[in-house]
Formats: sequence, structure tokens, C-alpha cells
Amino acid sequence: MRTEVDSLGEVQVPSDMYYGAVTARAHANFNIGGSMERMPVCNYPQLSDCWLNLFYSVVFSSASSVLSVLVEVIKALAILKKCAAIVNKDYGLDPKISDIIVKVAEEIIDGKLDKHFPLVVWQTGSGTQTNMNLNEVIANRSIELLGGELGSKTPVHPNDHVNKGQSSNDTYPTAMHIAAAMLIKECLMPGLQRLQESLKSKVDEFQDIVKVGRTHTQDAVPLTLGQEFSGYHSQVVHAIDRINGALPRLYQLAIGGTAVGTGLNTHVGFAEKAAAEIASLTVLPFVTAPNKFEALATKDTMVEVSSVLNVIAASLMKIANDIRFLGSGPRCGLGELSLPENEPGSSIMPGKVNPTQCEAVTMVAAQVMGNNVAVTIGGSNGHFELNVFMPLILRNVLQSIRLLGDASNSFARNCVDGIIANRSNINKLLNDSLMLVTALNPHIGYDRAGKIARNAHKKGLTLKESAVELGFVTEEQFDEWVRPELMLGPK
Amino acid sequence: MRTEVDSLGEVQVPSDMYYGAVTARAHANFNIGGSMERMPVCNYPQLSDCWLNLFYSVVFSSASSVLSVLVEVIKALAILKKCAAIVNKDYGLDPKISDIIVKVAEEIIDGKLDKHFPLVVWQTGSGTQTNMNLNEVIANRSIELLGGELGSKTPVHPNDHVNKGQSSNDTYPTAMHIAAAMLIKECLMPGLQRLQESLKSKVDEFQDIVKVGRTHTQDAVPLTLGQEFSGYHSQVVHAIDRINGALPRLYQLAIGGTAVGTGLNTHVGFAEKAAAEIASLTVLPFVTAPNKFEALATKDTMVEVSSVLNVIAASLMKIANDIRFLGSGPRCGLGELSLPENEPGSSIMPGKVNPTQCEAVTMVAAQVMGNNVAVTIGGSNGHFELNVFMPLILRNVLQSIRLLGDASNSFARNCVDGIIANRSNINKLLNDSLMLVTALNPHIGYDRAGKIARNAHKKGLTLKESAVELGFVTEEQFDEWVRPELMLGPK
Amino acid sequence: MRTEVDSLGEVQVPSDMYYGAVTARAHANFNIGGSMERMPVCNYPQLSDCWLNLFYSVVFSSASSVLSVLVEVIKALAILKKCAAIVNKDYGLDPKISDIIVKVAEEIIDGKLDKHFPLVVWQTGSGTQTNMNLNEVIANRSIELLGGELGSKTPVHPNDHVNKGQSSNDTYPTAMHIAAAMLIKECLMPGLQRLQESLKSKVDEFQDIVKVGRTHTQDAVPLTLGQEFSGYHSQVVHAIDRINGALPRLYQLAIGGTAVGTGLNTHVGFAEKAAAEIASLTVLPFVTAPNKFEALATKDTMVEVSSVLNVIAASLMKIANDIRFLGSGPRCGLGELSLPENEPGSSIMPGKVNPTQCEAVTMVAAQVMGNNVAVTIGGSNGHFELNVFMPLILRNVLQSIRLLGDASNSFARNCVDGIIANRSNINKLLNDSLMLVTALNPHIGYDRAGKIARNAHKKGLTLKESAVELGFVTEEQFDEWVRPELMLGPK
Amino acid sequence: MRTEVDSLGEVQVPSDMYYGAVTARAHANFNIGGSMERMPVCNYPQLSDCWLNLFYSVVFSSASSVLSVLVEVIKALAILKKCAAIVNKDYGLDPKISDIIVKVAEEIIDGKLDKHFPLVVWQTGSGTQTNMNLNEVIANRSIELLGGELGSKTPVHPNDHVNKGQSSNDTYPTAMHIAAAMLIKECLMPGLQRLQESLKSKVDEFQDIVKVGRTHTQDAVPLTLGQEFSGYHSQVVHAIDRINGALPRLYQLAIGGTAVGTGLNTHVGFAEKAAAEIASLTVLPFVTAPNKFEALATKDTMVEVSSVLNVIAASLMKIANDIRFLGSGPRCGLGELSLPENEPGSSIMPGKVNPTQCEAVTMVAAQVMGNNVAVTIGGSNGHFELNVFMPLILRNVLQSIRLLGDASNSFARNCVDGIIANRSNINKLLNDSLMLVTALNPHIGYDRAGKIARNAHKKGLTLKESAVELGFVTEEQFDEWVRPELMLGPK
Repeated sequence: MRTEVDSLGEVQVPSDMYYGAVTARAHANFNIGGSMERMPVCNYPQLSDCWLNLFYSVVFSSASSVLSVLVEVIKALAILKKCAAIVNKDYGLDPKISDIIVKVAEEIIDGKLDKHFPLVVWQTGSGTQTNMNLNEVIANRSIELLGGELGSKTPVHPNDHVNKGQSSNDTYPTAMHIAAAMLIKECLMPGLQRLQESLKSKVDEFQDIVKVGRTHTQDAVPLTLGQEFSGYHSQVVHAIDRINGALPRLYQLAIGGTAVGTGLNTHVGFAEKAAAEIASLTVLPFVTAPNKFEALATKDTMVEVSSVLNVIAASLMKIANDIRFLGSGPRCGLGELSLPENEPGSSIMPGKVNPTQCEAVTMVAAQVMGNNVAVTIGGSNGHFELNVFMPLILRNVLQSIRLLGDASNSFARNCVDGIIANRSNINKLLNDSLMLVTALNPHIGYDRAGKIARNAHKKGLTLKESAVELGFVTEEQFDEWVRPELMLGPK
Repeated sequence: MRTEVDSLGEVQVPSDMYYGAVTARAHANFNIGGSMERMPVCNYPQLSDCWLNLFYSVVFSSASSVLSVLVEVIKALAILKKCAAIVNKDYGLDPKISDIIVKVAEEIIDGKLDKHFPLVVWQTGSGTQTNMNLNEVIANRSIELLGGELGSKTPVHPNDHVNKGQSSNDTYPTAMHIAAAMLIKECLMPGLQRLQESLKSKVDEFQDIVKVGRTHTQDAVPLTLGQEFSGYHSQVVHAIDRINGALPRLYQLAIGGTAVGTGLNTHVGFAEKAAAEIASLTVLPFVTAPNKFEALATKDTMVEVSSVLNVIAASLMKIANDIRFLGSGPRCGLGELSLPENEPGSSIMPGKVNPTQCEAVTMVAAQVMGNNVAVTIGGSNGHFELNVFMPLILRNVLQSIRLLGDASNSFARNCVDGIIANRSNINKLLNDSLMLVTALNPHIGYDRAGKIARNAHKKGLTLKESAVELGFVTEEQFDEWVRPELMLGPK
Repeated sequence: MRTEVDSLGEVQVPSDMYYGAVTARAHANFNIGGSMERMPVCNYPQLSDCWLNLFYSVVFSSASSVLSVLVEVIKALAILKKCAAIVNKDYGLDPKISDIIVKVAEEIIDGKLDKHFPLVVWQTGSGTQTNMNLNEVIANRSIELLGGELGSKTPVHPNDHVNKGQSSNDTYPTAMHIAAAMLIKECLMPGLQRLQESLKSKVDEFQDIVKVGRTHTQDAVPLTLGQEFSGYHSQVVHAIDRINGALPRLYQLAIGGTAVGTGLNTHVGFAEKAAAEIASLTVLPFVTAPNKFEALATKDTMVEVSSVLNVIAASLMKIANDIRFLGSGPRCGLGELSLPENEPGSSIMPGKVNPTQCEAVTMVAAQVMGNNVAVTIGGSNGHFELNVFMPLILRNVLQSIRLLGDASNSFARNCVDGIIANRSNINKLLNDSLMLVTALNPHIGYDRAGKIARNAHKKGLTLKESAVELGFVTEEQFDEWVRPELMLGPK
Repeated sequence: MRTEVDSLGEVQVPSDMYYGAVTARAHANFNIGGSMERMPVCNYPQLSDCWLNLFYSVVFSSASSVLSVLVEVIKALAILKKCAAIVNKDYGLDPKISDIIVKVAEEIIDGKLDKHFPLVVWQTGSGTQTNMNLNEVIANRSIELLGGELGSKTPVHPNDHVNKGQSSNDTYPTAMHIAAAMLIKECLMPGLQRLQESLKSKVDEFQDIVKVGRTHTQDAVPLTLGQEFSGYHSQVVHAIDRINGALPRLYQLAIGGTAVGTGLNTHVGFAEKAAAEIASLTVLPFVTAPNKFEALATKDTMVEVSSVLNVIAASLMKIANDIRFLGSGPRCGLGELSLPENEPGSSIMPGKVNPTQCEAVTMVAAQVMGNNVAVTIGGSNGHFELNVFMPLILRNVLQSIRLLGDASNSFARNCVDGIIANRSNINKLLNDSLMLVTALNPHIGYDRAGKIARNAHKKGLTLKESAVELGFVTEEQFDEWVRPELMLGPK
């Protein structure tokens, strides 16, 4: 253990840790939820398990370079610290100190110092302690690299150098936007795109399969299976539109607002240069937020992102629900689709296979809807110049983005891609359906058509038998007028 | 128009209205949502439409006396004003004034003065303006009955007499508990009870019908339809237990706490006597709240009631969902149940009938879940000595109670009572099911049983054909071991 | 009473009502929630109370013409019925019948037939019964005008003529988009615009008032009151941006999809012409939805609108919360703002005035957040070709739009406009603040600045006294460096 | 790598892992959310960091033995597997196999095999794959201990022996109840109890401190600080009551229902004996659920537990909000309380200290409220004989329990315990308050009292000056009637 000092006095810190006094205090003071609740480092798909690499090496080969740039909270803050250090050179920061900060920030971005970030989400609502955790780790590691003494704050000071021109109040909101925007780009968008393509291929594959429609869970007039899937496809296309609609505001960064939005202790131009540097590093069109008071005091844009994710969750739940019901059976359900058999379905019922991907998707959807409520409550409860529900908000938004992105990808790859239409069963149900009677409306009117359907239902007749029995149409007329393949669009 | 005066000065009030200056100001200042958003008076099932009376006179005959005692916010406050006036006689209130307050309060309870309560829910968060609306109407109507001049506050003063020993801060919370407790008793409990009885009768009716079970929407081992309905029945029994569990806290009344919970300006004993008087009038076991600071500053118990309603909503959604899927068809769905045909189902598809009661129930459930979030947000955002989300909270809790009560009743009467089991279809599906193979586990093990099921599924065989083809059992063994009627319980 | 007939048989209908058999059945079958739960007709601010007109005639004079075009569900459906009848002339509908349908639809739009629409929200989830209510009322009223017999369906048939080329499955979703888009235009946008302007005027008015900032509810570095209000203003500007972002999808109409999205029983071109006719009548850029399967089976765009309203609710809650805390007091709170005194605040504490508009706004915000959960649950639970939570979804979205629009307007007019800055109190607090020490960071470093602040806090000194006592700066340096008016932006 | 086989064929499994084919498939098929989303093993406060042990050894000394029995999902399932193996001896399971299963289950309970449970929450909604993960690990590890070949399923078979008499459909729900009940006992209850005691000590400590009350955030009549804290204390007492109210249903276990609730393939008595064995092992009063169909098909009781946690979250948010506002300042806020200074508050503002524990608590509360929505959605969407949102539901309920328990404990220890009342500031505000005028109501009436308050407010007078100036009371009367210490209760 070594002794570190902050404004409240001395603290003992483990000697093998780079973090300092503030982090140590916070680690002791927020013993909430255990290690599972740590501020996210970078846990996006960990492919370390060898068998997974062996098994799926082909599938993932293109993904690995993409994954390497994924960032979450700590990484996003490190990106910011690096960019701030670069810009601060223009405003008087000793180039040697700037360079070493950049170097250590890159170590963090590369995941080399993960163990030095032990704090949980449930700390101060401004994320100050995590910002200080960054400042302390960068300072101490820099000091070490420069041959100084850990905890001495010399020659690199956590506040005066690493945090120069910054405050937790603008760094944490900035990191929130960076982390969310990058995870949207790296995880959500590819996932939705993958699902969109998978659904599109099914729209094409199923375009000629005429089937019974269902409304109110009851038999209705026919459509093609391709038309049905075109609805799902359109939902996912709109999902991408919706998230894109929120991005312009997400690209606005708070950095430069410092403590309350005024930009006290920064220089004119710092905000714009820092945003430009971050944009350059991340290859995303970040700009400085026009109004820093809003950018610190509210998390409206994070609430907006979460609300968009809420819509996407509702869309995915609908699609997954439909697919599992259309695939229900194999003998006692609707049985129109066969879903891929991924795992044995039951530990007691032999031979059972379940729509497990649909279940993962619908559980993810429920989680995202719940997260949205948590984010909304946090976002609405800011006071004065700062919102202090930021770690909560960020945790939920990042989890929602990742779950939706991963689940879309998993759903496409492990379910939608492999869906097979059970043509014979689909055809049988179509021909049994009483709702084909709707085609008679323009010829004999709604009321008489209704009598045909009800008569058939009561007596167990086919529609044609019922129609002829009631004398409303001849057999020839029925065959001419009631043709499912002609009921698929306007005249 | 006449002129009324309050501490902020003069206000013009419509001459045909009993309300006074505060109400008039509030009516102008809270032009939010229109008349649909009025603080609930007493709109529980309005049976005024003559045809409804004619049509359903038998059904409703027993209900009318019950309905007559239903109260909501304004009524609950009037009950409180009446009881306070009675108790205040013990503490120096002129008996003549007490008597006239009681008389007018009874007019309000009887619904004779409804039009004098124009304020919307979206007013001050303490409900002060509605409390003053009561005080003003009672004062002016009393003055009128005693031959005085409206607006003169003589001989009956809205604050000094009608509100004697009270504050909005304890009257409104008290009215919340009264209104919620009475509506639970008069609407929710009878509704749940009705549904429970309806489901119980189906448990008995369906006890011998063996059917295929379904897990993950996929075919599973058999159970009886009565067993399936016994799950629904048990849910409703537990719903009643859950709401009963919250009542002891709901029966605790805030009256006597006055402005901040101290009871300033009341007398020792007033709180207890007022609660006793209310208990006597409502025939519900109300008592005075042990801690008045909590009773004013929090609405935790209303959040608790709402949270219980949230659980009941989840239960009803499950039941209604199952019933509509089991009743899906008539030819292209599961088709195990026939639901009553209440209305033509489609304006375009003749002969279609839909599970409309299930849909009303599931919509009600979704509303109750949403209301619970609103109530929770309101309940968690109180500050210091008073929660100021009270009208919001009350509106949502009352709506949730009423919707769940009415929907349970409607669902029982218009759907569950009339459900018919389609025995032939149920039997056909049961015999097709591959999951009967589970009965072979103890005889040939899980792995070989699985092979039989998968072989049958792939080749379109019956289970027996598959089993014999694979040589794992003889035909005789199969017939002895695979008997659905022996698969309905432990050995 | 007269007898009407539908496919399920005869029904008795009140002789003075235009509605028919389906409506009568539904009225009896869905006795849920009473008259307060009726499908919204057109209850936007009812200005009938004469005193309100007298009192606020000036304020509202410009509003009355705007209000006259407000529509909700029934009106939106009537608009659709009118436009469909016009377009149907091109596809063979007898012009005489088309004309009379148009005429009766206009009567409904004008609110002349409101009493003929008795159904509650909690009916079938497709709104079929409300669509049929429209069809029946238009048919019977047309028959009456043409001298026929009510209930005869001759010469105007509710299904074959009024509903020609339509299904509840496309009319109700179309009416949802029409009603929501119009209410956004007529109520939400003007409300947000009004609030935006009110806040902007305060930004200007308060631009020179330097005050203490607050983060974590604790004293922080200074900013101007105008800067603080600029954050609120920016939130409302973004609120308008956000709702505008969702409109393109809201302008897409389902009409033309008929029963399951295929457009069966319509003609090619009907969808486009109907959307154009509606656009022309409403002066809103409605178009036909590119994918009708999505438009019927999902309510994703309504969920999206609701989710945007959720963000706006979070914004308004933040603003209203801040304003009530900044206006807390008058003697024992923060006391920086004086809010307009709209009503006496307490029925027991004389002279008390409360931030009642803030309370109405925060209650509205909580309701909108809750409604969003209800809408999301409804939106995510559609099955197959139709979502059957539509009346629930529409009810909640319309309520949220109206409450947010009205509340924004009320908040601007009755609160923000009249806010006065308490300059002397603001100034006193500013000068007491210890956080001005932050200005010393660049001169003496974070650690020594912290010692000054803590020393002042412990000993009850002014900052300057503490700074000089500790010897870190001279009096002259302090006066030069610590100047709040120079702490309002970057250097 | 070794080869394992299940009913779908061969799978490669890492040779150093005990899990088998099903787990391996699921690990590949549900690549959702990364390692942070793993099914909870046992991550309750990890005290491994040496410095934490050194620093807080005294504080935690009594906790360590308690912590050792904490279990979560995997542990709960292991407990169940152990108990089932014991009971299965009575029903024919080879004692040698029973004994080895018990032995391995104990290894899992002791946390020795954690790395063999790699699956994430977002898998099949029945948790089947996690149940199979247990079965496979126990079987393979047993085989290893008995000298057999991994993957041979001999002599211990994952389904036929480890899962004997069980199905995922009853084991997973059983594990849910075990895990939730144990975590309530070990974490939530001690946390709430700790907070309750801490608040109680403050009620006593502050009982004589008279202070201004606040309603609507505005000054109101006085109360004691002890009375104010008694409200918080009562909330926590009720929180304990509420959670206790739900426990009887949580103690009902599904085990014995097997696949659909019938108990197929178990023996009469197994359910009761298994519940008794679990009760004995956990020292909690578990019993067998009276209705197994409900126990499998619904998660109503988990929704109920979550809903109760929702109420507790609302309570804690209120308390934490109050405390941070009462502690706001130090110079520009309410300043009635001093909270412990746990960490430096700002990375830019030296000397700032923030109410960080309050912020952690309010963030936790928001999370729990959001989790409740996720749980409710999952709970309401079960279909037929099984709810398939179980891992989602369990994850959220366990997180909510743990966060509330830990946060209560942290809040008590790191905040409430150390709260100090700022008596001089409290006294100053009390004497400034205008609402003391309420004491004059009984003497001079509400209207004249109001004039005194308003006159004082307008002219900046003391109440007494205003009262005497207006001539309503003499100085002597004022001094006799307006005495805060006499305004703390009824007369």
C-alpha cells in the first residue's frame, strides 16, 4: 500500500494500482452491486474462448478489426483525455506532459489498464469519481513512465494537467455521447443492417407463397408470406431511419462547458478544437454543442436515444412474436414456418425444439423498454446546472444499444436466415379458410357473404358448398370469383 | 356574474355556480386537457341509457344498489367534510353550522351538485384547489340555504368553518385513501370475484378434457383443460390476496395532520374521531395514520396499491392472451376453444368473429401498467413535508381500479362464462402430438425417446410407427406406456 | 326503440340514435370505465363557460378560429369517410350516395352528432366497433335525410357504401395518424412555440444577472440567469425539432390496405387518391404509406410519436423543477425568482403562494411518461396482420399531445411570462459563494484553491479572508482574479 | 477439445470445461451482450481487494460469514440439484449417483466451478440452457470423480440422473424463488434494517430541533427535524412490512410440476419432499406451490416482488432527495443539514463536496423502477403452460434486490449516520418564516392572518411588525400566540 493525498486528507492505495485517493475513497464508499456493476470498460463480444474461435472463425473473421475499435465509458473518457491533451498544447500545456498523457490514454484505449478502473455505476451522479479515476491513473502511470514517484502528482498532476480545461461536468457528458455514438455505429447499425438484409432475402424467397392472413389472431383474407415479411423488413428499415434521426444531436459534445456550462478556465476555441480532434480520432462527425448549459444540465439527447431504442424494441418484439407463433407446432400449432433447430429444447421432453432466438429477442426488447423508463426518470430529474443521474443513464443506454445490436445480429444469423416455409401446411390452411368469402362482397354484398361464411362454419362445410347450398352463387361463379391468388392487391 | 374575494383580491364568478374565488382562478389558470380531464366526480357505470336498462335489466338488477354508494374524489372529500363537521361540534363548532355543512355534504355525496366542480386534474399538486372548491361550494350552498348572500362567507366561512381543523395537505390524502378503498370494495373486488367464480366453473366443466400442453408456443406433454384453467383461477385468487395485503395501510388516514403533519390547529383526539366517523359512514375499517408526516409527505401506500394493480394487470393479460390464442381460428388457428360471438368482427370480412373481450382486457392491462409508472414517478418526487403529485396519483389509481374491476366483470360475463371447449379438435391435436414420447423416458431413456420423436417429425409418422420402426419398443409396450390420460400427474 | 339487424341477428336500438346494431352490441358488451372513458370526440378546451369567455376574451380571441378545426378520433374518422366517399365516385359509387355521405360526415366534423358515439376506448382492439359506429350513423342519418327508414340499410348501406373500399383495419390506423398529426399541429406545436418565446424573452431579460451556479444541488461557479434560462430555451427548441423529426412517418396513411394490407376490394389508385384528398382537406402533407402490411400490423410510428413526447416530458419536468426550486421561499428557500401569484396557496396557511403551474407541468410530465409505457406495451404486442391495441394507443398519444400542448401554453402564460428575478437576493448569494475560488485554479493550482475554500467553510470566513489568511494570494491578487463577471465564459 | 453429443448431433467442447453439448451450442448461439451479461453466479460484494479488507476490516468483520451463504442463480440451481438428488434416493436413484451429485452440487455452491457457467441471460426464455449447463457440469464432473470419460454420460447422465424428476420448466422457476428469497434475506433485509436503525437514531437525536416546514417547496408551518425524519423512518419500516407481505407467495416452489405442471415423470410426494429439503438447507420456510400450472405458466409472484421493490425505490428516492436538498449549500442552499464529506466533489471546483450517497441512492431507485417495467412486460407475456421471459425476470429482480439492499446499507453507513443538524441556520430560517402566522388563524381568522403575511412579504417586515402595523393583534398577543414550539402538535 502507498499513501495518496487529496483535499480530504490521506488515503491508503494498493501499491500495484495506478488509481489514487479519490478513486480509493469512492471504491470504499460505493460498495453497491459488486463487480458486475462496474462502470463498463470494454466487454463487447469477448472472443477469447478458443472453441468459439475455432467454431466460428469464418463467420467472425471480418468482425475482428471492427471490434477492436469498440469503446465504452472508460475508453470514451480516454479518447477525450487524449484529444484534450493534444489541444491543450495550443493553450500552454508543456508538450512533454501532453505527449505522455496521450501515450497513457492510448494504453487505456487499448485495454491495457482495465484493472485500474474498479468503480461501480452507483457512485456520484456526475461520474466525477470515474473522471478522477481516469485523471489519477493517467497521472500516476505518466509519472511512472517519466521515472517519478506514484502519488506525488509530479510532474503530472491529475487535476491541473490531465483534467486541464475540463470538469467532470463536461467530460462525462462528452464521454456519454462518444460512447453511445460509437456503439451505435459499431454494434447497433451493423446488427440492424444484418437483420434487414436477412429479412429482405426472405421477402424475395417467399414472394409467391399465398397464405391465410390473421387479424385478431383469427383467420382473415389471404396475403403472401413475402408480403407478411415485407412488413417486418419495413419495420427494420424504419428502425435505422429513426436512430439516424437522433444522431445529429448525439454528435454535439459538451466539452468546453467545464463546470456549469460557461467554459470557465478554458480558452476560447478549446471547445471547437477538442470536438474536432475527437471527430478526427473517431471518424464520426462530432461538433461542439451550441448550448453548453443544456448539454450539462440535461441529458435530453440520451433520453431521446433511449426513446428511439424503445421504439426499435417494440418493433423487434412484434417480429419475434410473429415468427414464433407462425413456427408453432410442429403438429399442434400454426406450423407455417420451420425455424432452425439450434439446441435441444427440453431437458425432459425428448425431441423438442424451441424458438429460442425469438425468446432472446423478446427478452432483450423487454429489457430495453424497462431501461428506457430508468433513463427517462434519470433524465427528468436533473437539477439546476447539472444532471446527476449520468452513470445510470449511460449504463442503460449502452446496455440497450448493445443488446439490440447483438440480438439483431444473433436473430438474423441463428434464426431468420434459416427459416423455411412449410408450403404444404400453408396451402392446406389457406384452402380451409372461410375468409376467402370476402372476395364475394363486391358481387353479392357483405350481408349475404356473411351468411355463407357462418353457414359453412356451423355445418362444417367448405365455402363453396355453403355458397351453393344457400343459392347466392353458382359453382362456376364461386370458382371464378374466389381465387386467393387474385386477392393479393387492389384491382 | 357575482364578485367573490380571496386573499389575492376580487374575482368574477358565474352567478349560478356555488364555487368561489379560488375555484374560479384555478379554472382559468389550468386550462389543460379540457373537460375530459376533470377531477373525477362519480362516473361509475352510467346506466342512464334507457335501452341498456331495458336490455340488461336482469343482469344489472342486483348491481344498482351497490352502484349507488360508489364514490370518487369529490364524493370522498364530501364524506370527509361531513365527518369533520360532525366531529368539530365536539371542538366548538356551532351546531347550526355543523348541521348545514353535513346537509350540503350529503347533497354532494348524492351527486346533486356535480356541475359545481369544474376543475381539471392538472392543477396544483396538492389538490388544494379542489379542496377549496369543496369548501367554497359547501359554504355558498349553506349560506343560500340559510338565506345569506353568496360570496359573503357569512354565516358559513369556507376556511374557518368548512375547513376547520383541516388543511388540503391532510384532506386530499385522506380523500385519496377513502376513494381508492371504496372503489376497490365496490368495483375491483366484485369484478375479481366474478371472474374467479367464472373461471372456477370452467375448471370444473373442463376437468376431464385431456389436451396437448404448449411450452415456448411449441407442443408439449398433455394436461387437462381444467388444469390449464386452474392456473388462471389461481392467478385471480392470488390477485385478491394481493390487494387485500395492501388494504391495512390504505385504511390509514392522514386527517388530523393538517398542514405539515404536526396537527397544528386541530385538537387532540380530532384525528382519531374523524377516522372513526369516516369508518362508520363508509363501513370500512379506517383508522388514523400512526405517522402523519409520512402520510402527507409521501404517497407510498398509493404507489403500493398501484403496484399491486400492476401485478393484477400482468395476470389478466396472461389469461386473456391465452384464451384468444386457444380460441384462434376458426379453421387456421389452434381452435381448442370457442369464444362467445358478441359482435360481427369485421367491417369488410363477412362472418368474422373476434376475441374482443380479450382485447379490451389486454388494453386495460397495458393502461394499468403505464399508469403505474406515472404513479411511481409522482410518488417518488415528493419534496419535504408534502407530495405534490396527488391529483395525478389519484387519477391513475382510480382509473386503474375501475378499469380492472369493470374489465374483470365484463370479461367474465361476456367471455369466460360462454367459453365452449371444442372437444373433437382438442382430441385430434392431442393424438397428433409428438411430445407424448416423454412418457417413454423412464422406460427407454431421454436419448432414445428423442430419436423416436425426431424420426416421426422428419418422416411424418405417428409416434407409435416411429417407435416401432426404430425398434425401441414393441407396439404393445407403446400402447401400455403412452397413454395421455395417465400423464396428468405424478405416479 | 327500433330493431336493427346485423350478421349476428336482431338488436334493439334507441329510436333517437342513429347508430345501429354493432354499436348497440358493443355499448352493452363493453361496460368498462363509464362515460369518462368514451372514445374522444372533440373535447379540446371547451370555452363554453361564459365567465371564462368574459375573463379571457382578449387572450383567447385569436385562438377560437384555430380551435374550431381541432379534431380527435371521431372527427378524424369522419374526415376519412368524407374523403373516401369523394374518391369512391371515381370507382363507381353512386354520386347521390357519395354526396349524402359527404354531407353527413361534415355534420359529424362540425360536432352536430356527438351523442351518437357512445362507445368507450376499451372495446375491440382494432376499433372496429367505432368504425362501424361511424358507418352506421352515416348510413342511418343519410337514410333519414333521403326519406328512408332507419335501420333499413337502404338506400345507404353502412358496409357496402359508407365503408366501401375500406376496412376497420385501414380506416382506424388512418384516423390515428390524422388525429395525432392534427392535434400536434393545432395544440402541441403552438404550445411549445409559446413556451419557447416566453423563455427566449427571459433569456434576454436576465442576460446581465450574474448568479451562483449549482451542481449536485451544491454551490458552484457563477453564470448569468440568462445563461441558465438559455438552457431551458434550448431544450424547448430541441423539443420542436424532435417532434418534427417524427412527422414524415406520421404523414404516411394506411388507407388502401383494407383488411390485411393487400388492398383487397379496393382499386389501384384508391390509396393514393384518398391520401391526397385527406391532405387537401386537412392542409397537412399526408401520403399513402409505402408498406401497408407494416401500417396495419404495427403501430411503430405511434410508438415513435409517444417516445418523442416522452423526451419532451422529461425536458419540461426539468425546467419546471428548476423554476420551482429557484422560486422557493419566500424566506427559507433559494428565493432567486418570484413566480406569479395565481391562487391562494393554502386552505390553512394564510398568505401562502405556491408554484402551482410548475406542479401541473410536472404532473403532466409524469402522465406522459406513464402513457408512453402503455403505448409501448400496446405497440409491441401486435400479432400477425393487425395490431389490436389501437384504441389504447390512440387514447394515450392524444392525451399526451394535448396535455403537453396545453401545459406548455399554460406554463408560459401563467408562470414563465411573469417570472421576476430577485436581484438583491441573487447578488447576496453570489457573493457568499465559496466556489468563486475556482477562478484561482490557473494561478495557484487546484490543491491550494481547495484549501482556501475549506478553510473559509470551516471558519465561516469570506473567501478573500481565507485566501489571505493562508497566504496563497494577496488581497490585491484576489480582487483582480476573483471577479464573477469574468467567470462567465472561456478566456 | 473433446466431442460431446446431444439429440442434435456432435459438438466440440473445450476439454478443460465440464459443460457439454447443449451449453456449447447455446454459448455460440447467444452471443448477446458479452461477459457482463452472464447469468449471475455469485458476485455479491467481492472483498478480494486487500486494501479494502485492511481499511474496513472492522466494519465488515461481522459481514463475512453472512456473505458466504449468498447465492444467486447458479447457486440456487445447485441447491435444487442437491436436494433433488437426495430426495430421488427415495424414488429409486442409485445412492452412489445421488451422493456424487450432492458432492458436485456442493462444489458449485462453494463457487469452485464458476468458470463452467458461461451462458448469458439472453438465451432461451425458460432458462433451459442454464438448467442443462448445471446438468452437464454435474454429470461430467461426477464422471471425472468416478473415473469415467467426460462426455460419455456414463455412469452419470445429465438428463436421466441429474435432472431426474425435473424439467427446466419447474427447476428454473424454483431457482428463481430460492435465489430471490435468499438475496432478500441476506442483502435487502439487513440493508433496510440498517437504514431503519440509522434513521431512528436521527429521529431521537433531532427531536428537539424546531425548524420551518416546507410544502410545495415553499415555506410552511414548523415541525421538528425529528418529526421530519420520523416520516423517513416510517417509510423504511413500511418497506420492510411490504416485502414481508410478498414472502409467503415467494416461498411457494414450482419443483414437482415438471414439464407443464402436471408432475409427469415424478412421483407422488416428490414435490413436497423436495421443497422440505430445500427449506431445511436454506433455513427458509419453502413449501410446494399449491397450483403448479400457475407456478410454471406465470411469474406473477416475481412481478409482485418487483412491484414491491418499485414501492421501496419510490420511498428511498423521496428520502434521498429530501436529504440532499436539506443539505444543499453550503452557503447558497437550504443548509439545514451537513452531510458527511466522503470524497472531493469536483475535479475543477476546489473544496466542493457533494451529496454523493444520495445520488447513488436515487440512481438505484430509477434503475429499480425501470427494472420493474421490464419484469412486468416479461411477466405478462407468458403463453400457455410456460412463461419464457424467466432469465430476464430473474436478472432484474435480483439486481433490484441487491442494489436496494446495498444502497440502503451504503446510504446508512456513509451518509445518514453522519448527518449533522446545522442548528444556527435552522433557527435563523425558522424565525424568518412568515408561515408562523398560521397560529393566528383560530384567534383572528384565516383572512386577516393572510393579510399580515402578505403585508410582511411585500414590505420586508417581520411577522410581528406586520401584525401590529395592521392592528390585528397587540405585540403581547403576538408573542403569546405565535410560538413555534407550541405549533408542533394538536392542542
